[in-house]
Amino acid sequence: MDYCEKTLSGKVVYEGTIFNVEKLTVELPNGHIASRDIIRNPGAAVIIPIIDDCIVLVEQFRKAAEKTFIELPAGKLEYGEDPEACAERELKEETGYSAKKLEKVLSLYPAPAFADEILHIYLATDLEKGEATPDEDEFISSKAYKIEDALAMIDEGTINDGKTVAGILFASRLLNRSK
Amino acid sequence: MDYCEKTLSGKVVYEGTIFNVEKLTVELPNGHIASRDIIRNPGAAVIIPIIDDCIVLVEQFRKAAEKTFIELPAGKLEYGEDPEACAERELKEETGYSAKKLEKVLSLYPAPAFADEILHIYLATDLEKGEATPDEDEFISSKAYKIEDALAMIDEGTINDGKTVAGILFASRLLNRSK
Repeated sequence: MDYCEKTLSGKVVYEGTIFNVEKLTVELPNGHIASRDIIRNPGAAVIIPIIDDCIVLVEQFRKAAEKTFIELPAGKLEYGEDPEACAERELKEETGYSAKKLEKVLSLYPAPAFADEILHIYLATDLEKGEATPDEDEFISSKAYKIEDALAMIDEGTINDGKTVAGILFASRLLNRSK
Repeated sequence: MDYCEKTLSGKVVYEGTIFNVEKLTVELPNGHIASRDIIRNPGAAVIIPIIDDCIVLVEQFRKAAEKTFIELPAGKLEYGEDPEACAERELKEETGYSAKKLEKVLSLYPAPAFADEILHIYLATDLEKGEATPDEDEFISSKAYKIEDALAMIDEGTINDGKTVAGILFASRLLNRSK
């Protein structure tokens, strides 16, 4: 099955700092006309940094949810930017680590019901510790957790950012299989 | 660490059909002033329907990403709606199944960098098959997949919706542990 929705018209109705909103008029497979509000942004690079049986996570406040989250390191892409270069840079900035090995493992759409955002997710191994260099207005700290402890934090709801839950569960399964 | 961002002012800059956009001016921990664009919506209920070693998934076109996705059944909440009642209804509408047992297993924020959306995720078991009753303008089909096959589809990128990847990996681990 492949239903699509034909775009009849569209316009940008809001230009923001990290996304734009586009309103489309579409024709459904049954001929009905519908409108679609869509968030457009260039996506992000996400890193799963692994050291032995530990994973490095960052803690930061997210105004949208008015809460502090424990997350995989990540950074917004610029349009046209290479996701792997972004992953390398953000890992260093947010955690201080440099990875000798970066392997693309997943591309995820976090909210395809209303956003075109795509997350390029890399497994980072062979890590070397250096100094974190966050932006002046970025308040973030990093810490290594045993993967078993991170899984328990998912079970109890302490880790509840979607990409982070997906990434930790994915990496845990991958590492178990390669044992 | 708990950095927060004090809201100095805010206004709704776009009212859409499934979300609003709010623009806030905030004070950062270092005293700097910044703006935050935030998507507000009432969240959604998501269902992980399990029958023996199979999982029931739905296929639907998502205009935002201009692609067809294989996803966990899900439905938007109304403000104030009980997520469990929404989960029951959406499971029936999208797949035809009714669950004798619904258990809340996860609450996830799919995009906390810019959206307040929260997903209430339920494991559905003891399923009884009936007729699917999608809305007139909803084009959706459902199918049961072996969980092992769904995991392989994550590995190869055929399943790439964030909540679905997190939900399948979570359920697979849960079911393996209870064996």
